[in-house]
Amino acid sequence: MFAATVLTLYPEMFPGPLGASLAGRALGAGKWSLDAVNIRDFAIDRHRTVDDTPAGGGAGMVLRADVLAAAIDSVADGRPILAMTPRGKPLTQQRIREISAGPGAIVLCGRFEGFDERIFDGRNVEEVSIGDYILSGGEMGALVLLDACIRLLPGVMGAPSSGEDESFETGLLEYPHYTRPVEWEGRTIPEVLRSGDHAKIAAWRKTQAEIDTRLRRPDLWERHEGARVQPPSGARQKKDE
Amino acid sequence: MFAATVLTLYPEMFPGPLGASLAGRALGAGKWSLDAVNIRDFAIDRHRTVDDTPAGGGAGMVLRADVLAAAIDSVADGRPILAMTPRGKPLTQQRIREISAGPGAIVLCGRFEGFDERIFDGRNVEEVSIGDYILSGGEMGALVLLDACIRLLPGVMGAPSSGEDESFETGLLEYPHYTRPVEWEGRTIPEVLRSGDHAKIAAWRKTQAEIDTRLRRPDLWERHEGARVQPPSGARQKKDE
Repeated sequence: MFAATVLTLYPEMFPGPLGASLAGRALGAGKWSLDAVNIRDFAIDRHRTVDDTPAGGGAGMVLRADVLAAAIDSVADGRPILAMTPRGKPLTQQRIREISAGPGAIVLCGRFEGFDERIFDGRNVEEVSIGDYILSGGEMGALVLLDACIRLLPGVMGAPSSGEDESFETGLLEYPHYTRPVEWEGRTIPEVLRSGDHAKIAAWRKTQAEIDTRLRRPDLWERHEGARVQPPSGARQKKDE
Repeated sequence: MFAATVLTLYPEMFPGPLGASLAGRALGAGKWSLDAVNIRDFAIDRHRTVDDTPAGGGAGMVLRADVLAAAIDSVADGRPILAMTPRGKPLTQQRIREISAGPGAIVLCGRFEGFDERIFDGRNVEEVSIGDYILSGGEMGALVLLDACIRLLPGVMGAPSSGEDESFETGLLEYPHYTRPVEWEGRTIPEVLRSGDHAKIAAWRKTQAEIDTRLRRPDLWERHEGARVQPPSGARQKKDE
C-alpha cells in the first residue's frame, strides 16, 4: 500500500481536500494511508522552537536542520523523502509515475524562508518544485504531489483507460474536448467529431494536440520534437477503433 | 477586498487548507473572502447532470458548456475568470502578482476529462496550469492559485520585506539558507555568512543564486539572461545594509 507521511507545522491541513472525492474514497478503502506528523514535536528546547534567524542576516526565519532531521529520522524507512521548495526540480508526470509505483513518500513541508540547506544532503532529501510561483508553505505542494500520485494507484481511477491519453503522458498537451449540446450559443462541436469516422477523429485529435502544444507550450513542443523517435508508418494505435 | 469565488463539484474542499495558518487568519480578519459554489446547482435537468460523453468517443466525461456558463454567469462581475487545466498557460509569479493586485478571481475547477472547449471563448475564461502533471481535479490547483495570491495581499505576510528576495521575483532561484547550529553533523554554515561583512554576504548570495539557477534551472537562466537589462554599476540595492 502507498504510504504517505507529511512532515509539517500544520498537520490540521491534512487530509484536507485529499479526504474528499477520488482520493478520499481510496483513503477510506485502505488503498493508501496518510500520516501528518508535526515537526514541532521534534524541537529540542522547552519553547519547542523549530526555526531561527538566517545566517548572514535578512528577513524571515529558517527551519533548523537538527529539528528537521529528528522529524525525518522518526519516519524514514526507505521511502523517497521529498521537500517542497521553489528551489527544487520541477515536478513532472514522469516523476509522479515513479513515486506512485513505489512504497510511498515522506513529504517535508517548509514555511517561512525555507529549510536549512544542510538537511538536503544530510538526509538525502529530493527538492521538488510544483511550479514557478511562491506559496505560503509546502503544504499546498504536498497536497498536489499526493493527489497526482494517488489517482494513479491501482483501483483508484474509475476507468483504467483514463489517464493514458492525457496531457504530458504523450509529451504533448491533450486535444480539446467537446460534449452535448451540439450547438451552444452559436458554437458547434467540430464536424469531424460528429462524423463517426474513428480514423478521421483520431487524426484530428492528434493534429489538434500538436497544434495546441506548438502554440501554447513551445517549450514542451521543442522537447517533444527533440526526444521523438519516428514511429514506423501506420504503427500508431487508435484507441477508438 | 480580494474576493475569491470557486466553482467546483466539491465545495466541501474549501476553504480546506486555506482556512489554516496565514491564509486562514487573513480570512478570519476579513482581508479576503471565499465562496465555494457548486456547479451542480446549475444543472438544467432533474438528474442534475453536469457532464456528458466526449464528442467523437473516448474515455471519461466532459463538463457541459451550458452548465458551466450558467454557473459562471451567476457570479461574474468583472473579476478575471480562470480555469485550472493542464492545457492552460503555466502559472507564473508575475501573473499571481497581477491577480493579487486586482479585485479577486473566479476559479473554475474541472473534473473528469475536463471542460467543453467552447466555454473558454464563450465566457472569456483564462486557462491556467499550475504544472506539467495531472491532478484528479482543478481543486488543488485553485488552492495553490489562491494561496499564492493571498500571501501577497496587504497586511497578510508578517514582514513586508518578506517576498521581495524570493525565488522567481528576481527571475532567479533564491540563494540557499542556513541557520543555527553553526555546525550540524560535521556540516558548517559557510564562513562568509558568519563574517558580518554585509557586502560580502550580499555578493555571495547573488553568486549562489546565479550558480543554482544555472545548474538547476537552465530554462530560467536562459530567460533571465535574455531579458536582463544591465543595471548601472553599483545600483543594486543590498537589503542587508
